[in-house]
Amino acid sequence: MTFPVVGMVGGGQLARMTHEAGIPLGLKFKLLSDTPQDSAAQVVSEVVIGDYRDLDTLRAFAQGCDVITFDHEHVPTEHLRALEADGIPVRPGPDALVHAQDKGVMRAKLLEIGAPCPRHRIVSDPADAAAFAEEVGGFPVILKTVRGGYDGKGVWVVRSEADAADPFRAGVPVLAEEKVDFVRELAADIVRSPHGQAVAYPVVESIQVDGVCDTVIAPAPDLDEALAGEAQQLALRIAAELGVVGHLAVELFETRGPDGKPGILVNELAMRPHNSGHWTMDGAITSQFANHVRAVLDLPLGDPRPRAPWTVMCNVLGGDYPDMYQAYLHCMARDPQLKIHMYGKDVKPGRKVGHVNTYGDDLADVRERARHAADYLRGTITE
Amino acid sequence: MTFPVVGMVGGGQLARMTHEAGIPLGLKFKLLSDTPQDSAAQVVSEVVIGDYRDLDTLRAFAQGCDVITFDHEHVPTEHLRALEADGIPVRPGPDALVHAQDKGVMRAKLLEIGAPCPRHRIVSDPADAAAFAEEVGGFPVILKTVRGGYDGKGVWVVRSEADAADPFRAGVPVLAEEKVDFVRELAADIVRSPHGQAVAYPVVESIQVDGVCDTVIAPAPDLDEALAGEAQQLALRIAAELGVVGHLAVELFETRGPDGKPGILVNELAMRPHNSGHWTMDGAITSQFANHVRAVLDLPLGDPRPRAPWTVMCNVLGGDYPDMYQAYLHCMARDPQLKIHMYGKDVKPGRKVGHVNTYGDDLADVRERARHAADYLRGTITE
Repeated sequence: MTFPVVGMVGGGQLARMTHEAGIPLGLKFKLLSDTPQDSAAQVVSEVVIGDYRDLDTLRAFAQGCDVITFDHEHVPTEHLRALEADGIPVRPGPDALVHAQDKGVMRAKLLEIGAPCPRHRIVSDPADAAAFAEEVGGFPVILKTVRGGYDGKGVWVVRSEADAADPFRAGVPVLAEEKVDFVRELAADIVRSPHGQAVAYPVVESIQVDGVCDTVIAPAPDLDEALAGEAQQLALRIAAELGVVGHLAVELFETRGPDGKPGILVNELAMRPHNSGHWTMDGAITSQFANHVRAVLDLPLGDPRPRAPWTVMCNVLGGDYPDMYQAYLHCMARDPQLKIHMYGKDVKPGRKVGHVNTYGDDLADVRERARHAADYLRGTITE
Repeated sequence: MTFPVVGMVGGGQLARMTHEAGIPLGLKFKLLSDTPQDSAAQVVSEVVIGDYRDLDTLRAFAQGCDVITFDHEHVPTEHLRALEADGIPVRPGPDALVHAQDKGVMRAKLLEIGAPCPRHRIVSDPADAAAFAEEVGGFPVILKTVRGGYDGKGVWVVRSEADAADPFRAGVPVLAEEKVDFVRELAADIVRSPHGQAVAYPVVESIQVDGVCDTVIAPAPDLDEALAGEAQQLALRIAAELGVVGHLAVELFETRGPDGKPGILVNELAMRPHNSGHWTMDGAITSQFANHVRAVLDLPLGDPRPRAPWTVMCNVLGGDYPDMYQAYLHCMARDPQLKIHMYGKDVKPGRKVGHVNTYGDDLADVRERARHAADYLRGTITE
């Protein structure tokens, strides 16, 4: 059978879970990974070990792939253009992906299309950051390097001009943003195909701890129905305007106006499967990973609706104990409905090594079960 | 992390889907496959190509595996005993597996434990088969070679003594069974772990066409509740009495007594993930594949309950068109809720190359959707 070959750049857990979703679809999967120990490299049959920053490596890897897609957003734009010039479909393409690679480009484009954003501008030095703070009502403000950040890295909460030196050390342009007094964080995840078909997952609540995603609740509890629709429409519009193909996560702040009216502001964009969508593996009819590969291959998309009233995802972070196996046994025994997703990674304190999903009718129960399993696996609680 | 290594003997679709289920569990998977083109060999990272009938190959393969389990039941019993003597856990073990390998041994054991079976005995030649027919009320009777049959192979419906020569040609003992006048076929699938924990899936209806499984409906519609419980209890008892570890499929005939009372008779046993359980991949909280690996590793088992009122599985058989990709596109577009499972196998007429699952509240609709997709993929219908 002439089923297509998907080339995945990057060997992390997103690649691992995309491969898992591709198996039932009958797809062939080829991986470009930094090391044979990477999360996805452990489970994929065809693995090329190499550096995605090297164009020759990328070109050799792309031979025999019907499409190239990504586990991360770090491949240089000019390399992606070179692959496209070679005739290899790159999805999302470089013109879209740059908006997820460069926060300055992203903010400029979002302003242009009228998407609600925190006040922001590029700042040139600590004094300029202080001037920006003045413009938005004073410190604290957020400074971000426009490239290279993730999971709280490359982001600073700055409380004074003296505090603002660090972000400029990397020699990368720095974006200043007002510190939004948000009610909570949401994510609107959608998947879009090259021919423009798109599906929107329910808007979720995302709870961060120390800048790292900790818990996702699907759908976001007590979310104003009109606002949920607005968030989905916004994500679909961003995808269409930016030409996104594949999964797009629009991370949002939920705000409350002086009139008590809820609103949203765009925080970040991610153009790949995203932590805010891990709940879909057990909680939606079609997972974000399955829909991402369907989209990049221009296959018809699957139904994004939830299968249960509530699904909760908690990330499993590494704790002080390098071996989680006994805790994993305990969690399976305690909750036969628990869905565990381990990434095959060595445990390091604070590292994402897996996640758990729970679902059901009673949110408090569903949430407690996920929380307990994640904490027990990390070693922060015992029975 | 010290997560265990599962050694899977056999590279067919059951191994492929077991690997898929093992990825989120964080397990390492090692495959012994006949060829690199085998269904599972296409998607597993660590593949040994070799002959499972060769003990040295098996021994080398077993190095570094924490447990050995199977995609099929064809590994010689003496080889399994040798592996066990080497200290490798083999699950299911040879003493259990022999009952799935040898229909004569299976029938003798089932009689011994009082499991309801069709009348049967080993017959020595066509004349003896005719004598057996006489004993059970006349031809037709069923003749089976005690070893080597599957999917209708090794099974004959014999209508006369002259007709009964074929089964004896292989030089394998021949088992004669009465031809049961059954209402329908059922399967009671259970999973049992070494420490004796066991879970029972809902009893399903299995519809065969030309001796090959075509459709499975979960749960079996209109099944008498007491009979369903009896079937589950029977499967659990067989597993315990035979020492089965892992997934056990008990294929059953549903009968109707002269008093109209429903009953069951055991048709076949399979000690591995089984076609009657493919619906669990999308229809149950924990799939048969996930529970099979959990069982062979003596991990706590997952919840076997269904997630939807009805789930229907239809096998996708090869038709006259070698390339299913266009049909596959069509099916995804027609039914965004359809769950397709392709095995990566070349299309040959009548060959199982995949299956589809559908689920929902309305059995007629769920069944039509699965039927349509399977027929469309095979090429026997167009829109």
